[in-house]
Order: sequence, then structure tokens, then C-alpha cells
Amino acid sequence: MGGDHGPSVVIPALAKVAKRRTDVNFVIYGRSDAVRPELEKHPALAPVVQFVHCDVAVRMDDKPSQALRHGRWKSSMWRAIEATKSGDADGCVSAGNTGALMAMSKFCLRTMATIERPAIAAIWPTLRGESVVLDVGATIGADAHQLIDFGILGAAMARSVFGIERPTVGLLNVGVEEIKGQEEVKEAGRLLREANLTSMKYHGFVEGDDIGKGTVDVVVTEGFAGNIALKTAEGTARQIGGYLRAAMSRTLMARIGYFFAKGAFDRLREKMDVRKANGGVFLGLNGIVVKSHGGADEESFASAVELAYDMIRNRLLDRIEADLDLFHARHPQVAPRAAASGEGSQ
Amino acid sequence: MGGDHGPSVVIPALAKVAKRRTDVNFVIYGRSDAVRPELEKHPALAPVVQFVHCDVAVRMDDKPSQALRHGRWKSSMWRAIEATKSGDADGCVSAGNTGALMAMSKFCLRTMATIERPAIAAIWPTLRGESVVLDVGATIGADAHQLIDFGILGAAMARSVFGIERPTVGLLNVGVEEIKGQEEVKEAGRLLREANLTSMKYHGFVEGDDIGKGTVDVVVTEGFAGNIALKTAEGTARQIGGYLRAAMSRTLMARIGYFFAKGAFDRLREKMDVRKANGGVFLGLNGIVVKSHGGADEESFASAVELAYDMIRNRLLDRIEADLDLFHARHPQVAPRAAASGEGSQ
Repeated sequence: MGGDHGPSVVIPALAKVAKRRTDVNFVIYGRSDAVRPELEKHPALAPVVQFVHCDVAVRMDDKPSQALRHGRWKSSMWRAIEATKSGDADGCVSAGNTGALMAMSKFCLRTMATIERPAIAAIWPTLRGESVVLDVGATIGADAHQLIDFGILGAAMARSVFGIERPTVGLLNVGVEEIKGQEEVKEAGRLLREANLTSMKYHGFVEGDDIGKGTVDVVVTEGFAGNIALKTAEGTARQIGGYLRAAMSRTLMARIGYFFAKGAFDRLREKMDVRKANGGVFLGLNGIVVKSHGGADEESFASAVELAYDMIRNRLLDRIEADLDLFHARHPQVAPRAAASGEGSQ
Repeated sequence: MGGDHGPSVVIPALAKVAKRRTDVNFVIYGRSDAVRPELEKHPALAPVVQFVHCDVAVRMDDKPSQALRHGRWKSSMWRAIEATKSGDADGCVSAGNTGALMAMSKFCLRTMATIERPAIAAIWPTLRGESVVLDVGATIGADAHQLIDFGILGAAMARSVFGIERPTVGLLNVGVEEIKGQEEVKEAGRLLREANLTSMKYHGFVEGDDIGKGTVDVVVTEGFAGNIALKTAEGTARQIGGYLRAAMSRTLMARIGYFFAKGAFDRLREKMDVRKANGGVFLGLNGIVVKSHGGADEESFASAVELAYDMIRNRLLDRIEADLDLFHARHPQVAPRAAASGEGSQ
């Protein structure tokens, strides 16, 4: 029910996915009057869709607390998350209100046993392909142990989504020297280097410009800096797109050039389209939840669904649990109980 | 002596500035064997240049503590800063080691009476022109009072450099709602709104994508997030430049298009060139110090010098002092002594 377009984008997107992934089944939660007409336009979906009517839909401008108050147990968002918990679904995808989706996911699915706080992971297009960047806004601040958790979560996701056996992991910092940056980041770096985990290759610190270069497969940071990095990159891409459009329409020669190079510009636009790599993945919960951009079109919502599909197929949650167990078995001194005392240190 | 090219870029850059600003005089500190040959190539500089030989030059890879140990009192960097203190110069520009330049500037010039920590301000090209963004890396973390100081410093700089009488100031945050974000940012927002200063128009929170849009004239944040935002934007610009080059050389049609639109691409490249808006301004010190990019070419080092020139001409330091006095006279409850107790709170 969420996002800028609701079922008019979601249902056609599911039709696309159903054609490409023939073993997929959908359970759709929403208001009957909004969803039924769209489903009727896509009869091919009938055999793979189960529709569940819900009276209540979380609004895009609901605060997380409001959404929980009005929407818990009964809203379409809640019930989609709950289906993931009960096993009626293997994962949940929503284009709805991010804050509400995270609050409900935490409340319903709970964080994994050794994880204190969840993260939102973004897939970031880079010059070398794609990287996982987390946390891009689930929680403000993170201590060293939470940053290590994010590293383990992100590496498991990179293995599931990119198929890289031992992804490289970097900690986002203001310099690459060991002596620089926040205390938490320095401690996390020291612990990750010592741990020498089999599930990842710890690279060291990376800086803001390393993200776009694709220096590492997984970039780890706390939610404040991560959110600002993500939005700054989106803003810069739009800004350069604006410059480019202005430059290409300014003179006759430029317009002629644009005419010839139109195919190239179309490819470029596709590369720069932030919606292509659609889907913020909620990590650290007992269930797979993917947040699609609210403004997603059909193809881009389909990407978010296929991202969830890939993570389910590749048993992301099992991988994460195994990696966390291994880490904590080897490093009892950084058991999650110890983490609380470090919280808030600067 | 610093930067990737040393005097071979600095001296020709000064020759450019001397042509454009006819009332400027330079005092140059450096090793005679490196500087003299360059000066000889630019005889027009002779009447406006005083050269001071220094045996020691801070190296680009010196740690700030090393630089202070080996270079205090005698290195070219130190003596240029000291000239700003003694009044032999009105400001100092260096393409050298940033950490060393900041450490020496703090040590020699000291922070202004009511300022606890200095900031580095960047001039950021936006869709609407240019904005000041600070702190981009002088110090990690900032409490509410330090963020307010940064706002006052940045607004004074925007008035001096852009000639805007009452610049708009925004606090960088992960959402624009008053309830979101770090406690320090929320408190700074509340205090700035209450203060209703005549030297700035407080806009509220801004997000990462607002920087490139030019939503406000001055974007305020602490040094960790600010540095990551700056470098992420630089990285994204380079990434898109890379895509563009690849797209334009891939097919014959694209290469023909590029041929026609070459003028437009040149303009675009200029717009995207991060070196054009060259110069990190150290704010909050008893003196004007501008850090040029190490990789600056002649034109771009000249920009940094002219930035310093403009701030000197427009009496930046006097403006800052007047603004700070006014703020602290009106708001004794946020006097700098009170700031210390809030430090490190999360």
C-alpha cells in the first residue's frame, strides 16, 4: 500500500518478477479496493498470488510510534512482516514508510540473539561494480562492537547477493591511517584485524571517495555518517545530471552532439539512476525485510523483490547466524554483553 | 614548499594573482634552491615579493606531532603562519600537509577567545551557486555549542566571500523533522532558532542531498560527517566522470556526438572540477589560514590565494568577532564555559 504509487506499481512489478523467477509465490497484504483492480489486470499472477485484505494501511507521514499504535497486529505492513515471522513468507518487501517499517520489523521480528541494533544496508553502484554500504540510517551512532556486527552482517549479505566468497570489508573513516578518526572506529578496526575472520577480508579504513571507487565490497559506518554519505552521493549525482542537461541544450553544436550520442546518454542515465540499485536491506533481524524506494517504478520495485529473493535463495539468515556464532565463539571478550558498557563513548 | 608540485605551481600562481589584484604583496617562505629559480622565471613578481629562506620544510607525510617537533619556529610552514600572527602578513596560504598546518595554526595563532575548536570550511559548488560547508575534518564530533560556533563562523565567511548580507544556515542531519538525529544537532537547532541572530537566517535541518541543491548558504556539521560528505561527493563526481568518458568512447555514434558537443563537455568538466572551488578555510583562529588542495594546479592555487585575499579585504576576522560578541552578549547561558560540560554527550 506504500510508496508514491501503491499497488499500481507493486502489482505490475510482481508480474515481471513472476516471469523471471518461476518458483516464486507472493502473499499480498493491502486494501481490497486498491489491490483487486490491479490484480485483475494481471491474470497471469493468479496462480502464484495469495491476497489478504487489511483494513488499515500505514501512512507515509505516520511517525513510527503512530504507526505502531494504529497499525500493529492489523495493518498491511505489520501483517507482511508477521508473515515473515510465522513462516507464511520467506521475506517481506515494502515501499512504505521507512521509520514505521523499521519500528514494526524490530518489534515483530526482534534482533538476532547477539545483535543489539539492526542496520539498513544499501547496494551502492561503484566503478568496479556494486558494494554493500551499512548502516545508512537505522540508528545514530555505533560503538566498536556494533560496527563489527555491521561488518559481519554486510559481509554475509555481499556473499549472498554478489556471490563473493570472502568479501573485503572497510571501515568508513576520515583518513586511512590507523591513528585517525573516532575511537569506536579505531577500536573496531583493531578488533577486526585481530579477528582475521574467514567470512571476510578486513581491508582497513576507507574514506568517502573510496565508496564510489569500489575499493571494498562492504563499507561499514554508523547510521548518521552513512545516511549523509548516501544522500550526498544521490544529491551529487542529480547535480551533475542537471549540469549535463544544461550543457547539452545550451548550444546548437551541443544539441547536435546530443542527437548522435543519445544512446550513450541513455546508458549513462541508467548507470546514474539511483533507483536501479533499489532496496534498503534491514539486517540483524530474525527475518528478511527489504525497503524499496517510495518513488520506485515497476522495474525498480521488481529489483527490490528480486534482491529479497536472492537473499532468501542464498540462505542469508543462516549465513549470518553461522558467521556470528563463529565470531563470538572465537572472541568471547567481545561478546555482545560487553558492548553495552562501551556505548556512547566518544 | 608543500603540495604535489611545490614552488613550480605556487610561484606561477602568484604571478597570476599579482596581475589580477594589483594591491597584493607576497611574503614567500621556502628553501632558496627550490624557490629562487621559479622566482627568476617571473621577474614581474619582483616588486611585490619578499622571499624568506627557511632550511626546514614540513613533509607531506609528517604526522602533526612530528611536524611540530621538527618544524616549529623554523619551518617555512610555521614561519608563514607566524607572519600572520605578527602582522607581517594578513593571511597564510599553503598547499602543504593539512594535519601539520592545522596543528601549527592552532599552536601559533590560538583559537579565538570564545571558540573552543577550529573548523575547516569548504566552498561547495551547488546547483544554485556555491555554499560554505563546515567542519569538513578539523575535529571529530561537536557538541551543540560548537555547532553554533561553526554556524556563526560559516555565516561570517559567507558574508565575506559571497557578499550575502544574511546567509541562510542549515544543520546537516538525517532528516528534516525536528525530532530526528543526534542530540547535539537537535539542541543546536533549538538554540539557533531561539537566538534569531541578525548575522544569519537559521533554516533548520538539511540532509545530504540538500548540499548539492544549494538549499542553504551555509551547511553546518561536525568534522567526521562533514569530511565523509565532502569526500563522498568528490568520489561520486569522479565516478560519474568515469561513466561519462566510457559512454562517450564506446560507440562510433557516441564519438561523433562527443566531437560536436566537445565545447559543452569542456564546460561540464570545468563545473565538475573540484579544484575550481579550491581552498579549505581554517575558521575560529586568530588569523586567516587557507589550505589549498595538494594537487592544485596554477589556476587552482591562485583561487585559494584569491579566496584568502577576499576574506582579508572583507575583514572576515572583525566580522566573526563582532558576531560572536553579539551572540554571547545576548545568550550568556550558552557562554563557551558551559560548552565543556556538554562535550562528548551522545
